[in-house]
Amino acid sequence: MTRLRLTLEYDGGDFSGWQLQPERRSVQGVLEEAVQKITQESLRVTGAGRTDAGVHARGQVAHLDSESALRPLELRKALNAVLPEDLAVLDVEAVAGDFHARYAARSKRYVYRIWNAPQASPLARRDHWHLRGPLDLEAMRLGAGDLVGEHDFSAYRGSPGGAPLEQNPLREIEAIEIRRADRQIEIEVRGRSFLRYMVRNLVSMLVEVGRGQRPASDPAGVLKSRDRALGAATAPAHGLCLEQIVYAPSTPTR
Amino acid sequence: MTRLRLTLEYDGGDFSGWQLQPERRSVQGVLEEAVQKITQESLRVTGAGRTDAGVHARGQVAHLDSESALRPLELRKALNAVLPEDLAVLDVEAVAGDFHARYAARSKRYVYRIWNAPQASPLARRDHWHLRGPLDLEAMRLGAGDLVGEHDFSAYRGSPGGAPLEQNPLREIEAIEIRRADRQIEIEVRGRSFLRYMVRNLVSMLVEVGRGQRPASDPAGVLKSRDRALGAATAPAHGLCLEQIVYAPSTPTR
Repeated sequence: MTRLRLTLEYDGGDFSGWQLQPERRSVQGVLEEAVQKITQESLRVTGAGRTDAGVHARGQVAHLDSESALRPLELRKALNAVLPEDLAVLDVEAVAGDFHARYAARSKRYVYRIWNAPQASPLARRDHWHLRGPLDLEAMRLGAGDLVGEHDFSAYRGSPGGAPLEQNPLREIEAIEIRRADRQIEIEVRGRSFLRYMVRNLVSMLVEVGRGQRPASDPAGVLKSRDRALGAATAPAHGLCLEQIVYAPSTPTR
Repeated sequence: MTRLRLTLEYDGGDFSGWQLQPERRSVQGVLEEAVQKITQESLRVTGAGRTDAGVHARGQVAHLDSESALRPLELRKALNAVLPEDLAVLDVEAVAGDFHARYAARSKRYVYRIWNAPQASPLARRDHWHLRGPLDLEAMRLGAGDLVGEHDFSAYRGSPGGAPLEQNPLREIEAIEIRRADRQIEIEVRGRSFLRYMVRNLVSMLVEVGRGQRPASDPAGVLKSRDRALGAATAPAHGLCLEQIVYAPSTPTR
C-alpha cells in the first residue's frame, strides 16, 4: 500500500464544492469515481481544503492510499484520461505513510480576483467578481493590515443562517497582499487554515472599505466585536481560487 | 443620423463567428438583435474583422448608423443590459460619418495563446491551445522573422477544402512576437489585415518548428511555394483572440 499525494486544478463553476455530497457533483466524488475506474479500488480521497461550491483551485492537494501497481506518472496520465475537462491531476507523488493533506499543511494561499471596470468582462467572467466603481486600494491595504496575525475571527466566519460553525474561531493570517494590474485586482490571503467563508467575508469587508462605504478602521473594529452581523455580505464564490498549499520541506509540493 | 463606433469583447466559445448566418448564433446577429431591442431600428452592424467560430475578441470594433436619441454612454449601458454575458460593449463613441470599422483600420493585433504543460489546464482550457512537449521558442522566432513584411500568403490561407479564397493573397505582417510566462506562451501577430485562417495557419507552422518537426527555414520555404498543401494543419480557434484594432489618430480607439 502506498500513500499518494495528488495536486489538483479545477474550474469550480460546475462543482458543488470539494466535499462529497449525495446527488451533487463534487470534486471529491468525481475524483473518487475516476480512481475507482483506474485502480478498481473504492477509496476515500482526503483533501487539504474543503473549497465551497463555485470556488476554483490551481493547487488543491489530496491524499489517498492505493494498492495500485501503477507508478505515479502512469496514474496521473490514467486519471486525466478519464477525468472531465474541468478537473485535472497536475501531479502524483508517493509520500510517507503518515503524510496527511490537511494536517500536514503549513500554509494555504488563496487569491480573490476582481474585475474593476465599467462593464463586466465576457472573458474574465468565470473567475472574477465584477465591480464597477473606483476602489481605494490604499484604504483597503490599511484595513487589511489590521487582520494580519492571530485573532478570533468569529465576525468573519459563515454566512447569516448558514452551516454549523467550527468550534475554535482562532486563526492566523500570515499576509494579505492587494495588487492591481490594469482592470484586474488580486487580493492574496495566506494562512495556515481558514474558517468557512472567512476569505470571502474578509474580501467583501475590504471592498466596502475600498468603495468608501466603511472607514479603514472597520475591519479591525468588526474583528474585535466578534459579531458576524456587523460584517459585510459574503463575496461571490467564483472570484476565489485556492492557488497553493505549502508543506514542510520533507514533503514538497510543486 | 449618427455614426457610432462600438468596441466589443466576446467569449467566442458559443458563437459561430462574427458574421451573420441563418440559424446560427453569430456575434453580429446577437448584436443587431440587441440594437433593435434598444433603438427599435433594424440596422446593419459592420465589423472590422470577421472572426471565425470559436475565436475570441477583447477589442473588436464595429460601426452602425443610428437615429437613436440615446447618448453613447447611455447606449452602451442599455445594450449591455440586454446582451448575453458572453458579449459586451466596452465602448460607444460618436465618429465622423465616413468612418468605416474595416476600411479605416490601420492595424490589427491578434494574440494566440498556448498552454504548454504536461496536463491541460481546466482554468485555461477555454482560451489556450494545450501543447504537451517542449517548444523551442528561439527556433520559432527565427522562423517567424521570415514571415514579417509584405508577401504573397497563399500558402497560409484557408484550410484544405475550405471556403472560397480572397482574390488578392498579398498581405503585410508588421510584427510577430513570441513570449513565454511560465506555462503560457503568447504569439502576437500584428498587421493591417489577414487572409482567412492566416494567423492560425501561421501559428501551427511555428509550432511544428518549435517541436522540431520542421526546420526554422520551413515557414519561409512554404511561403515561397505559395502551396497551402505544404503548410501545417490549422491551429484550433479557441487559442486565438482579436486584441486590438488601431485607427488613425482622428478616430482613436481605446
